[in-house]
Amino acid sequence: MLSKTNIIEEVNNIEQLYVYKKLGKINNNILSVVQVANRSLDFHVHEKSDELFYVIEGKFNLETLEGLTEVKEGEFIIVPQNTIHRPIVKKLTKFLMIELEGTLNKENSGDLYED
Amino acid sequence: MLSKTNIIEEVNNIEQLYVYKKLGKINNNILSVVQVANRSLDFHVHEKSDELFYVIEGKFNLETLEGLTEVKEGEFIIVPQNTIHRPIVKKLTKFLMIELEGTLNKENSGDLYED
Repeated sequence: MLSKTNIIEEVNNIEQLYVYKKLGKINNNILSVVQVANRSLDFHVHEKSDELFYVIEGKFNLETLEGLTEVKEGEFIIVPQNTIHRPIVKKLTKFLMIELEGTLNKENSGDLYED
Repeated sequence: MLSKTNIIEEVNNIEQLYVYKKLGKINNNILSVVQVANRSLDFHVHEKSDELFYVIEGKFNLETLEGLTEVKEGEFIIVPQNTIHRPIVKKLTKFLMIELEGTLNKENSGDLYED
């Protein structure tokens, strides 16, 4: 039997900030949830994958060389492959992330991505 | 500047049932939203793609040869490539769908998928 997943329950069950919890895989793209607060990453690119940020709760700024886009609860933004970007998170924000398997690591994910 | 998308606004702005509205593309997977009511599809497979159903509002049953899984608001289910399945929708339900570009057509999507 196929199993279903509740996104809000999964993200709320994570006990630590910056820990990505994998929820599933679709066509080699990983779906994961993470809670983040008070963290900005350095500018970086993903050379092999687009990246989707969906805000389950809270808000953040996605910065590119063209400026900032504020992304709020219920909104997603897709960063195309090879686009220089960084997320800027102030208050607690809960994310659903989608990117190709193998894209995230400790350097570009904020902290504790567990492969 | 990258643009962001509000999922609930997009699905609520669709004026007809069974019309898929494309919201974006991530690694060749299409994100689309659709409103469905009172429609069951025939059993079918997608030979080249997994398929994700996320319920924005409402609920439906996903039937496989192993039985039914009820998927409710806030939940998603991923149907692996080549899995025989069909969605059964009674009352109005609003979906976010993800699958590889070129997967959906009039026969397997319910009606009016516009490529």
